[in-house]
Amino acid sequence: MKNKEIRLHSRPVGLPTDNNFEFVDAELPPLKEGEVLLRTLYISVDPYLRGRMREGRSYVPPFAIRDVITSAVVSEVVESHAPSVQPGNVVVGYLGWRLFNVAPVPDLTIVDRRVAPISTALGVLGMPGLTAYFGLLDIGQPKEGETVVVSGAAGAVGMTVCQIAKIKGCRVVGTSGSEEKNTYLRDELGVDAAINYKNDNVGEVLREVCPKGVDVYFDNVGGAVSDAVLPQLNHGSRSVLCGQISIYNLDKPDVGLRPQPFLLVTSSTMKGFIVTDYTSRFKEGMRQLVEWFIEGKLKYKETIVEGFENTPRAFIGLFSGENLGKQIVKVG
Amino acid sequence: MKNKEIRLHSRPVGLPTDNNFEFVDAELPPLKEGEVLLRTLYISVDPYLRGRMREGRSYVPPFAIRDVITSAVVSEVVESHAPSVQPGNVVVGYLGWRLFNVAPVPDLTIVDRRVAPISTALGVLGMPGLTAYFGLLDIGQPKEGETVVVSGAAGAVGMTVCQIAKIKGCRVVGTSGSEEKNTYLRDELGVDAAINYKNDNVGEVLREVCPKGVDVYFDNVGGAVSDAVLPQLNHGSRSVLCGQISIYNLDKPDVGLRPQPFLLVTSSTMKGFIVTDYTSRFKEGMRQLVEWFIEGKLKYKETIVEGFENTPRAFIGLFSGENLGKQIVKVG
Repeated sequence: MKNKEIRLHSRPVGLPTDNNFEFVDAELPPLKEGEVLLRTLYISVDPYLRGRMREGRSYVPPFAIRDVITSAVVSEVVESHAPSVQPGNVVVGYLGWRLFNVAPVPDLTIVDRRVAPISTALGVLGMPGLTAYFGLLDIGQPKEGETVVVSGAAGAVGMTVCQIAKIKGCRVVGTSGSEEKNTYLRDELGVDAAINYKNDNVGEVLREVCPKGVDVYFDNVGGAVSDAVLPQLNHGSRSVLCGQISIYNLDKPDVGLRPQPFLLVTSSTMKGFIVTDYTSRFKEGMRQLVEWFIEGKLKYKETIVEGFENTPRAFIGLFSGENLGKQIVKVG
Repeated sequence: MKNKEIRLHSRPVGLPTDNNFEFVDAELPPLKEGEVLLRTLYISVDPYLRGRMREGRSYVPPFAIRDVITSAVVSEVVESHAPSVQPGNVVVGYLGWRLFNVAPVPDLTIVDRRVAPISTALGVLGMPGLTAYFGLLDIGQPKEGETVVVSGAAGAVGMTVCQIAKIKGCRVVGTSGSEEKNTYLRDELGVDAAINYKNDNVGEVLREVCPKGVDVYFDNVGGAVSDAVLPQLNHGSRSVLCGQISIYNLDKPDVGLRPQPFLLVTSSTMKGFIVTDYTSRFKEGMRQLVEWFIEGKLKYKETIVEGFENTPRAFIGLFSGENLGKQIVKVG
């Protein structure tokens, strides 16, 4: 079996390019006790990986130059040296961008193929789903009748947030970068209003569509979209910082409207998080997501690029908003 | 009895000036049942009043042009039409900047002269004390051994925050604008380090004096000082937004380093508040403050300007940091 892997070749300056990645022929180490050999089926590409390609502090330590990029990967078990996992099982875990991985079983979760297509383990029934669940419910704490604004609403996390906010009885307003995405948000996910940040005056439209102000702001984007939300925050509002994709390729400090004066006069909260803050509650979150999914209350959308060789391209495309819903690379 | 009052004559542009205020001869309405006639002894001037001199949203509705300015005032009861209050009693309440006020008794609190000098009802045993207590303990939630940074540490709220943080067993670092203030913070209040934001490189000194990072940031100042704190925030840090005095005279949007990326990668919280969010717990807070005060654990400092006619000047002086501790005008 020929193995290949994708390494960080150089640190991106601004928007990443193909040249920041390197395809390398890779060895497969012999299986040890408790390990499995995995064939990659689907690779998740995520905006947060941009932070790990930069030197210095992010959520998690940065990749070193020549490190294999890792992200959530769905694989099929080819060979197992562990009693709890059989060849043919499908698993998900944080694995290298490789055609084949060898991994210890405790790092993996078996995907239940009866519930949903296995690719959803990278999206609505994976980390993005859990991110939406804990960020919105634990930090945002939306109450029935409140107004929830979601930036990056047409991404994997944003879509799930919109739907959970609707389940909770909120008025939901999303922002995205295209009419196609906004049509999906309105017609398929039932959001009350969708704003195109590329064409609309976000502040003006927000004032129109949030006549009672904003109680929860779930932010995937940052920058100018967030600036427009700040003056609309209600007393006691909660802003959930999930991502800041608009600035991930900025190679200087993020300068703009400081939110502190707005938070001050409204007694509002702004809180950052990473889904692993909630590791001890993943089972609870997943149980609820699966329940809503089975009941038909939680829809999902995927943008699938085919071919391992297109993984860097799929990643780079995130920053121009090429994806509707979860961006996935189909390898198998 | 001749009465005088101070009204808002025009909205300040930038730093307020004497011309924004107007001294007017005032009538004294006859006392109604349940009301008292009060002679002003001490007037509190506070940075937040600048926000009320501006049109548009702040904590509380803005003053209209020709409105009498109101703030916390300590007065002596001259005449009473209420059974619960006697002439000679000293009371505190939100009253007009007047030589004499008429007020209904439910708006007033009797000051216990046995506990402390009556002027402390405007500072350590008044709203600033409660602001420090609830902001630090309820939002900041400092734990023993953690590092607490306080901006505007030599103001009425800041000093109290520093001391409560020391009571809670924290490492405490304060910022102020003069060596005299920092000497007081170190020698009298026992803070572990004090930074002069006018002379020091705040970011560099912070890195030196907070080797384990910052767990709680109690912010009275905003602007560049806060910018320097952001890169030092620890995972799970809490930033308490109490004031933003550095920008109150800014007549354009506050543009600078956006904190969102820093909050995001550290799962940190930033929360604004106003002390009246905690009205239902004022008794608890005051009981604890008085206890610490009697035990000698809570010191205070006042800067007293004499003369009703100097009230606007004392207010204006807040923005150049003329006060060490609570700025008060002595009228009686």
